[in-house]
Amino acid sequence: MAFARVFIDGVDTDPNTAAIPVGDVGFVRGYGVFEVVKAVDGVCFRLPEHLDRLERSAAMLGIELPSRELLTRWAADAADGIPEAIVRMLVSAGDDPWEGPCRVIVTGEPASPQMASLRLLPVNAPWHSDGAEWELLRGKTLSYANNFAAIRQARMAGFDDAVLIGRSGRVLEGPTFTVGWVVDEDGRDIYETPAMTTGILDSITRTAVL
Amino acid sequence: MAFARVFIDGVDTDPNTAAIPVGDVGFVRGYGVFEVVKAVDGVCFRLPEHLDRLERSAAMLGIELPSRELLTRWAADAADGIPEAIVRMLVSAGDDPWEGPCRVIVTGEPASPQMASLRLLPVNAPWHSDGAEWELLRGKTLSYANNFAAIRQARMAGFDDAVLIGRSGRVLEGPTFTVGWVVDEDGRDIYETPAMTTGILDSITRTAVL
Repeated sequence: MAFARVFIDGVDTDPNTAAIPVGDVGFVRGYGVFEVVKAVDGVCFRLPEHLDRLERSAAMLGIELPSRELLTRWAADAADGIPEAIVRMLVSAGDDPWEGPCRVIVTGEPASPQMASLRLLPVNAPWHSDGAEWELLRGKTLSYANNFAAIRQARMAGFDDAVLIGRSGRVLEGPTFTVGWVVDEDGRDIYETPAMTTGILDSITRTAVL
Repeated sequence: MAFARVFIDGVDTDPNTAAIPVGDVGFVRGYGVFEVVKAVDGVCFRLPEHLDRLERSAAMLGIELPSRELLTRWAADAADGIPEAIVRMLVSAGDDPWEGPCRVIVTGEPASPQMASLRLLPVNAPWHSDGAEWELLRGKTLSYANNFAAIRQARMAGFDDAVLIGRSGRVLEGPTFTVGWVVDEDGRDIYETPAMTTGILDSITRTAVL
């Protein structure tokens, strides 16, 4: 993936050469967490809520984050000068899965234009919680291979993206988006989404819209 | 993680500076596959079987691998000069999840001494297939955060490692090892393991022992 700006542990780095050690456990084991935030004119959408979730995810993996002040500054720096930016915050456990320190990559890139509609392929996602409780539930980790394989499967079949179906047969969420729908209730539009008890990601957009 | 030897797409690289681009989707999305092989005096244990599995895993993610001849040579090079070596083959989809080319990191490091016994903490693993079929079943991807979090949980509780328990309550496998046991049948030792229908990884060691 190509980025316009890259900050590695806060250091402004040339995006063409920005690199991490091959032994980083975010790479070797997908052991890390992340957030993606949209920024318009340098202002990130609900950044505190995204950082709250990043902190919860990091705590699940025992990763100690830099201060909120630093993360906030790096996010602003990554969005700087890009009118509509996607800011990614990728935090791996670093070179040692248990000892730290973590490694923080904050990137900025121009947002892609949103599509007016999407054709979605339903994909079975038995790896999804779909109601089962466990310690990492709703952690947003770097281990997204299953989600990305679902997108690939959808594209191969001529669709734009996938929508994940749980073991129960319920619609859960997209591989990288949340799902909602509008019900007409006596002429009023009621917005609905899958319940949080399905184990879907605690989407900031979902909470903002509900 | 620290390596003694690193080959990046076949290029012998200084392990102290060996790096991959931050945009590698193996890092950003855990979108890649891997194998770990032990080598004694430069001879890898059942390398063809490991490469078979690597090919199956890569096919699940739509990753096109370099030739078997190259992978075999790089594995030998990574083990060279290390009496008891762990050879890792890490293959990410590269800088673009869909277009390729892949990126191949082959590393060598001295094997750690094996422990005579392990104290294992049972950890619930609802993300595990445990009998559910799907397209990525038994793919050995870089997305190992759940497994590594299970190891961490076990260590925090004073155990050496974890053993994964599925939704059905069955013992499945370890986060990075296969599970077997010996049954005394009329004075004969019978070796048993969980069934492949549970969706456990198709362990080379398991097949060699059975």
